[in-house]
Order: sequence, then structure tokens, then C-alpha cells
Amino acid sequence: MSPVLLKAGVWGVVATPFSGSTFDVDETSLARLVEHYEQAGVTGLTVLGVFGEAAQLSGAERRAVLETVADTVDLPLVVGATSLGTAPVIEEVRLAQEVAGDRLAGAMVQANSADPGTLARHLRAVHEATGAGLVVQDYPLVSGVSIAPGALVAALRDLPFVVAVKAEAPPTPPAIATLTAGLDVPVFGGLGGIGLLDELACGAAGAMTGFSFPEGLIACVEAWREGGYAAARKAWLPYLPLVNFEQQARIALAIRKECLRQRGLLLESSVRPPAASLPESLSEQLKRHLAEVAR
Amino acid sequence: MSPVLLKAGVWGVVATPFSGSTFDVDETSLARLVEHYEQAGVTGLTVLGVFGEAAQLSGAERRAVLETVADTVDLPLVVGATSLGTAPVIEEVRLAQEVAGDRLAGAMVQANSADPGTLARHLRAVHEATGAGLVVQDYPLVSGVSIAPGALVAALRDLPFVVAVKAEAPPTPPAIATLTAGLDVPVFGGLGGIGLLDELACGAAGAMTGFSFPEGLIACVEAWREGGYAAARKAWLPYLPLVNFEQQARIALAIRKECLRQRGLLLESSVRPPAASLPESLSEQLKRHLAEVAR
Amino acid sequence: MSPVLLKAGVWGVVATPFSGSTFDVDETSLARLVEHYEQAGVTGLTVLGVFGEAAQLSGAERRAVLETVADTVDLPLVVGATSLGTAPVIEEVRLAQEVAGDRLAGAMVQANSADPGTLARHLRAVHEATGAGLVVQDYPLVSGVSIAPGALVAALRDLPFVVAVKAEAPPTPPAIATLTAGLDVPVFGGLGGIGLLDELACGAAGAMTGFSFPEGLIACVEAWREGGYAAARKAWLPYLPLVNFEQQARIALAIRKECLRQRGLLLESSVRPPAASLPESLSEQLKRHLAEVAR
Amino acid sequence: MSPVLLKAGVWGVVATPFSGSTFDVDETSLARLVEHYEQAGVTGLTVLGVFGEAAQLSGAERRAVLETVADTVDLPLVVGATSLGTAPVIEEVRLAQEVAGDRLAGAMVQANSADPGTLARHLRAVHEATGAGLVVQDYPLVSGVSIAPGALVAALRDLPFVVAVKAEAPPTPPAIATLTAGLDVPVFGGLGGIGLLDELACGAAGAMTGFSFPEGLIACVEAWREGGYAAARKAWLPYLPLVNFEQQARIALAIRKECLRQRGLLLESSVRPPAASLPESLSEQLKRHLAEVAR
Repeated sequence: MSPVLLKAGVWGVVATPFSGSTFDVDETSLARLVEHYEQAGVTGLTVLGVFGEAAQLSGAERRAVLETVADTVDLPLVVGATSLGTAPVIEEVRLAQEVAGDRLAGAMVQANSADPGTLARHLRAVHEATGAGLVVQDYPLVSGVSIAPGALVAALRDLPFVVAVKAEAPPTPPAIATLTAGLDVPVFGGLGGIGLLDELACGAAGAMTGFSFPEGLIACVEAWREGGYAAARKAWLPYLPLVNFEQQARIALAIRKECLRQRGLLLESSVRPPAASLPESLSEQLKRHLAEVAR
Repeated sequence: MSPVLLKAGVWGVVATPFSGSTFDVDETSLARLVEHYEQAGVTGLTVLGVFGEAAQLSGAERRAVLETVADTVDLPLVVGATSLGTAPVIEEVRLAQEVAGDRLAGAMVQANSADPGTLARHLRAVHEATGAGLVVQDYPLVSGVSIAPGALVAALRDLPFVVAVKAEAPPTPPAIATLTAGLDVPVFGGLGGIGLLDELACGAAGAMTGFSFPEGLIACVEAWREGGYAAARKAWLPYLPLVNFEQQARIALAIRKECLRQRGLLLESSVRPPAASLPESLSEQLKRHLAEVAR
Repeated sequence: MSPVLLKAGVWGVVATPFSGSTFDVDETSLARLVEHYEQAGVTGLTVLGVFGEAAQLSGAERRAVLETVADTVDLPLVVGATSLGTAPVIEEVRLAQEVAGDRLAGAMVQANSADPGTLARHLRAVHEATGAGLVVQDYPLVSGVSIAPGALVAALRDLPFVVAVKAEAPPTPPAIATLTAGLDVPVFGGLGGIGLLDELACGAAGAMTGFSFPEGLIACVEAWREGGYAAARKAWLPYLPLVNFEQQARIALAIRKECLRQRGLLLESSVRPPAASLPESLSEQLKRHLAEVAR
Repeated sequence: MSPVLLKAGVWGVVATPFSGSTFDVDETSLARLVEHYEQAGVTGLTVLGVFGEAAQLSGAERRAVLETVADTVDLPLVVGATSLGTAPVIEEVRLAQEVAGDRLAGAMVQANSADPGTLARHLRAVHEATGAGLVVQDYPLVSGVSIAPGALVAALRDLPFVVAVKAEAPPTPPAIATLTAGLDVPVFGGLGGIGLLDELACGAAGAMTGFSFPEGLIACVEAWREGGYAAARKAWLPYLPLVNFEQQARIALAIRKECLRQRGLLLESSVRPPAASLPESLSEQLKRHLAEVAR
């Protein structure tokens, strides 16, 4: 059975809420958060991604997060792998399969080499060991690996088990144009939606990101499908100041979690160190942006 | 006579237009461009900055660009220095003084060290050799130098000849909050205006950037002064999709010049290699954005 | 009971040998390798470090590697943690404790923040959860985190459970001078021994690295103790061409493993992708260097 | 007339000596230094390179340095260009031609693009404007540009005016193997000679670097020609501890200048800020290394 391509639309990248001075995983908030995503109408959820602070979680915590999400909602799930090496990625994918079962729409694996052949062998080995469909994430800021869009096409062209690409190597719009021209898989933008209009114009199948108002992402992507640029622009415009505010280098995670908290979706907004917390100087502006979007 | 602080508002960062396969400086387009800036109501112009491709110009070309700008408009001028070393910066500042005369509102010098004392000595040496007021630019992507906002405050605190700071080290809004709290000089945002609303909220005196619609920057900054966040947001919203489209890594220069060309302000939009040219895949979207903004 | 400081001398960083096209862990070679280390007279072994390709191993493989080493030799062990986040590091340290028991001389944890307070809190949390003595590794090329030597001193000054520092942020000799002046713990150089003479001169307690001839490291460190610079230089000189040959960016791992193979200590010299394999153009020179050292 | 290939051997990269608190160029020391190079028997000199702190010199100072060197010795000269853009590079090459005349063996231009076609066009434009033979320097640490060895071969293959390549992108030995296999021009190693033995083994035509004992570089390169690896190794061994000591990240410049001062070749060893000065903790070791080499 060949893996199924990821459905177009909006995949919400789920934050991992923490509580108290020991930063324990707050499963209650997590459940509330993913219920909100489901009610908002997302196509699916992406769990244990960068915005989910997966690199800060123990194995037991990763399992608990996955279980909570899988138990709470009925959405298809993409589950991220944090490692770059083949053997530990296989281990992570197996955990995802074990917990998510046939709800696993794809295991998200990072591009770990600039060389198409090396990357293809990595992905093939992960698939052969697990049978999972793979979402390939190109996110050099996190992986430390830069691969040119053309080389990424070459790497993925003959891999029938690749079910989507997540393109997060700026400039993403022309990269998405190259990827969608060369591959028959859906390509998603990320990066908080900062380039969403342009990514859609270049062929993106939607957005996979953790912007604190998935409603906005959905409104934009649906408007694009039905009315093209003008409609999508109109739908997206009210969210754009908050999008840019959230997508600030190094502090995006802290900002988004505080937005989610002020929306009532998390009880606390803390991030695990060494990630930076929210600068006090941004508190007022955060409230202003939220008030406008909430209108 | 102590140098005068830079006036708050919008300082347009001027592109250098080229023509033909030899990429000669197109002084006619340059004159038309800065006339447009003047008519649009900018506070001043920044010449020979990064967006002016100063690092790609010979000494003779730099002089010619400066002369054309100075001869065409009556605006105050900030003139950028490309080098990081004290001696060549002094040389560049002297050229600016020679051509711009008392129109020189400030020589823009890059932060060239993470160490406050070293940076202060550099700036002091430049000022002592030239008498010029200095705009300090913090732009690690270009300079390769990262200095923490607190260290930048420490470096500049006792330098009476610093007339402004241009803050381009993301995240810029909290950096601007730190700088404006610790210094008595105006701080300007840049980076195409992508964080303008938040920079203003954090105390920015305005914007100094090359966004292709200075009208939008002016509308936003003036609205902020008069009506605060809500007014500025409303004024800025129509421009924001184009702002994000323009501010794409590595290709921002090519996009902006093409926007200026399609506005009729430049005859050609070429950039000097090795800078990247406009990806074909973005042409349609560029037109859509322009059409909306031009409404 | 307060943790015991690491003993001065040479700590061999153990490679993980693989076999076949599936790169299975070759425990036979691993056992032979660590027996050689023991016979050569190393002070202890460092397992699951960067040179041990720990980031490429699954959890089961990490355990197997540790068990093989612990079962084969009686040496004290430093065990590396690959993660940067507190929770997964604790998990890794617990595995090390479980397998190595009281043979665990220290758990090696990477500096994960430029901020002394943040780093100190991380280390404290790891120690409090595990009770383990910690070796702090400062290796920005691998961790992506740069902390100034003075800030590292500030972070570690009041942490009685830190049993050593491994200094791998070039330039290492002056960093080691700063660390040994400010801390009462032994500081070890790494980086293949490329700066060993100078690190010893700046107060290093020895070397912790994977150079293919631990005999050379031992000869140098012992000569330093007994005869100072002149003796150490004389002992080290014959190895230095091979040291520089091995310590080449990106391919050091492949070179060293091939050296170990040609010495008869490993059956195969393959490295797990995406790590680079040995360039064919270096084969001849590798043989020449080995022949000279083997004299 | 076609440009002449650079002669194999050792090209000394000349430091620029400064004096006093104002760091004025010390032409007397400069003259003494290059006289020493000539007496030592170097093949030629490289002036205004990175080690010559060219990026810290004004135009007038660059001219003065070049004139002093050209007036003092009869050696062929390679003259470095600091800029990466075509127009300013042409300007720099013209200055070199004007001062050095037919003593100019090559203008050294940095690889400014990862794309072979873009780099080839840059080099062609510089040659067409000046007629100069070009030495292409691949030094990503300084230029910020990484080009793969194979792409560099592709860029230079059809450029008859390229007279040499300076390979300073580690790992340099396999890069030099690729370059010498694909090009008919001499390729030189740099980086203080840290990989010299291996670069020679991979086909390097010699060394072009600023190691403080050019005598050692010459002894090694000549020994290689006459006796191959064994002879070169023997000749090079006594210098190797000092080579490694000098080639320390960020402080190499300060160390080398102090070595030259202690050899009596410079009056002062200061470097222009923001370059780092010599850490006090290295003073003793520097003396030890020099004493050994001077034997």
C-alpha cells in the first residue's frame, strides 16, 4: 500500500504547554489547545515539531504529548522527528507509529544533507525500516543544513513514500515554485505564515505552522482556493500585523505561546530554557495586536 | 558646534539604478527616483547604503551617485560607509562631506565590534578625524558583527556626536526598546519596514529603509504620531503584503528595484552581480501586489 | 557525597565502529579498540561523544556501545549527552548511570546558552535530577552555542558538581588560561590535539580527544609533567603531522577511523551518513603519515 | 600577450606594520620585513592580503604600502583586492598596476559567488577592464562565500588569464587535489601552513601565507621537490608547533606580528582594531616556540 499524500489545507503545529517552575508538560492545556484547532477546522495537526519544543522533551514526555493529542482529537497527525541521523530518526518514527497508529498521516523528517543522493538514501532507509509516509522538512535555521531547491527536487523525485514537503528555507516562495514544478507532492509553507500569500501564489498546498490564530490561516487558504489572490489578501490582511509580530527571530516561540495564553488556550506561556522568554517591552503591543484580531 | 540629532520620520534608502549589460549607473533614473522621494514627503534620504549597492560601486561611481542626489533634491542626507575599518571609513566620510557639504545630516557607520569599548573608540576616531555626526548601523547580516543591544547602549552612551541609530538586528522591536531607554538619540527601524508597527510601539523615531512605497512608510509613521497604534495599523495594512513580499532573503534588492521600475521610477531594475536577480516565478505576484497598493 | 574531579591525563574519545552496508555497530571492533586504549595507558575513556557518532545512534545502540565498553575495560568513563535540552539530557545521563554505575566519572553536557545564569540553571537541573558529576563541553561548532570564556567561568564558578571542562572553542589556549584561572576544576583540550602543547602551557590538565594514536597524547602529556615544554615538544613532534592531517574540517571523523583501521584496531572505517567519507585523494598521504608514526 | 602562470614556491604574505597609538603605517619596518623575505629566498610577495590588514587601510595607505614594497625589493608581486564587487575590484587592480607595473605577477581576487557562471563573469570583467592576470582566492571565512571545489574548477576552466588559485577553504588538501586535477594552473595553500605537507601531497605548487618563518615554508617546499614526503616532513617538523600556535582563530594576526617583532623584523606588533590583540596568557609560550625554532 503506497502512502497517501498529505491533504491540502492548514496543518496546525501544536505547542507543548508547560506549567510551574519545573516546566512540566501541561496535558490539560494541550488537550484544550488541540480541541480548539479541531473546532477551528484545521486539516490536521503537526505534533512534536520545532514549535512543539520537541528537542526539549524527554522520550516519556514525547510519548505523553502524542498520546494526549491522539486521544483528544480525531484529526490526522504529522509527527516530527528531532534527530538528523538515520537510526535515531527511525526510533522516533516508530514511537509515532506506535502511538498514532493509522492516524499518522506522515512522519516529518528534516533534510539532513545538501547532497541529493545522501538525503534520498536517508529517507529511503527511514521508510524501509518503518513503512511510514514521510514529510520532508527543509528548515536550515534549525537543521544547520542548506540544500538548494533544485537539489531537493532531485533528492525526492523518485521517492514514492514522500507525502509532502515543508519548505522553510527563505526565500520560500520561489523555492515552493521550484518544488511544485518538479514534484508531484503537496508543498506547505511554514515560518508563521509570514510569506503565506506568496507561497500560495507559487503553488503551496497550504500552511503548516503554529501561528496563534489558525482561524486566520484557514480563512486565507480557503479564500485563495475560492477567490484567488484578492480574496486571500482580504482574508489575511487583519492577521498580518500579528503574523509579523509573532515571527520575530529567537522570540517567536515565547510570543506565540503568550498569544495562545491570552486567547485562553493555554494556562501558562512559559518556554523551556535556554529558549528566550518574552521581552517585557513587547507586552503592550502584543495586547494591541490581539485586540485588533479578536474584533 | 555639536552635531544635530537626526529628524524623526521617514528616511528613504535610495537605490542605485543601473542600465544595460555593463550595469552603468543610470543618473537619470536616480534623479527621477529621489525627486519622487522628495515629492512623497520623506524627511531625508540615505545614500550609499546596502540597498544602494554601495559595496558594488567604484569610488568614482560613489561620488557620482552622491553628486546626482545632492544636485537633484534639497533634502538632508545620510551617507553610508561600506567599510568596517577606521581608516577606510574616514575616507568614505570625507568623500560624503566633500560632496554633500552641510546637507550631510549624518555619516552612517556600521557597528564593527561586539565590544563596547572597541566600537566606541572606532566611532570616536571617525568623528575626530572628520567632525561628522554619525548614524550607527547595527546590521549583523551585512557586517558579520553581532553586538547585544545593552552593549550597544554602553558603547554609544557617552558619544555626543552620535545622531541616530539604525537598528537592523532582529528581533528589532525589543532592541529598539532597549536602545531608546538607554540613549537620547533617535532610533530608526529598517529591514523594509517588516516590523515597523512594532518598532514604533517600542519607541522608534521612524523608518530608514528602501521599501518601494515610501508613501506607505510616511502614512504609517505620521498616523502613529497622530493616532497611535490603531491609526498606524490602518494606514500600514494595505502595504503589508507588499512589504513582506519585498523583504525576502537574498532577493529583496531585486524585488524592490523591479517594483520601483514598474512604478515608473527606474528605467531598468537590474542589480549588479553577484546579487541574485528576480526569480521568474515571482513576476505575477509582484504585479498583483503592486496593483493592490496602487489602488 | 560530592562528585570527584576528573583525573588529569589523557581521556580517549572512543569511536563507534560500524560494519557492512547497514552500518551495524561492530561490538567486536569496539572491544578491541578500548582494550588498546587501556593497554596504551589512558586515564579514562569518553564514550558517546561527537567522535563516537552518538548523534547517529539509536537509544538501543547507545546502550549497547556503553555496555560493551563497560564490560571490556576497567577504566573510568565519561559519557557524553547529545541533546541540548534539560529533559532529554537528564534521560541520557540516567542511561549512562544505569549502565556505567560507579564507573561513571562524569556525564558530559554541552554548554547550551551564552548566558551564564541560563547555563548554570541547566547544569543544576541535570545534576539535581541525577546526582551525576558533570563535564561541561564548550564546543560551538557542534552545539551552535558560543559562550565567552569569562561567561563560562561565571556560569560554573559556584557549581560544586562540575568535575571538568572540555574546551573546544578556538582559540582554546587563551580560553583554557581563563578557565583554569577562574575555576578549580581540571580543563581538558580536545580538537584532535591540534593545540595540545599550547593548551598544556595554558594550564590544561590533559587531553580528551580521539586522535588515532593515544600513545602520542599520553607521551606528550606525561613529558609535559616531567620535563615541561621542551620534553613535551620532543615527544609530540613525531605525531604532529598526523594530528594536523586528521583534524581536517568535516572529514576528521573519516580520516581517524581509517587510521584506526590501518592500525588494526577496527575492521572497517565507515562513518554513518550524512557524515563525509574519506576523500580518495588523501589515501596515499594517510599511509605515509602512519608509516612515519609507526616507526 | 597571455598572462604568465605564477611561479611555484613560497609567496610571502606581507604584514603591514603600524606604529604608535594612532597605528600609522610604519614604512621602515615594512621595508625591513620585505628585505628579510627577499634574503630568505621567497619566490615572490603577496601584498595587501588579509594578513596585510588591507581592509583596515585607506586608499592612500594602500598605495604607500605598495610603493614601499615595490621600491624595496625586486620580487614579483601579487596584490590583493579587498572588495567583492566587480567595479571596486577593478579600481583596486588598477591601483596595483599603476604602482607595481610589470612587477605585478597577479591581482588576487576573491571568489565572490557559489555559482560558477557568476564567478567566471566577475573574473572576466575584471580581466577585460585591466588586462591583469588573476590569482583567485577561495577564502570563505573572509569572503562569506563558499564555492565547492568542483564548481570552482568549472568557473575557472576556460579563463586563460587565471594565473593561480589560493585555496583556503578547509579541508584544503582534497580541495587542492580537485583543483589541480581539473585546472592547468598552480594552486597554493595558505592558512599559515597548517596543512602544508598534505597540500603538497595533493599537488600544491607551494605556499602563499604569512607564517612568521618563511624560511620554514621554503625549506619544506624545496625539500618536497627534491626528496618528497620524508624530506619535507623532516624539514617542516621543527616549525610545526609554531605553525599551529600561530594559526589560532581570530588571534593569528596578532600572534604572527608579535613573532615578527621578536625576530627583529618589525618595531611594533600592534594590529588595527577591531582585530583582537595578543592575549597576555600566550606570551610565555610564544617565546618558547620562537626559541626552539631559532635554534
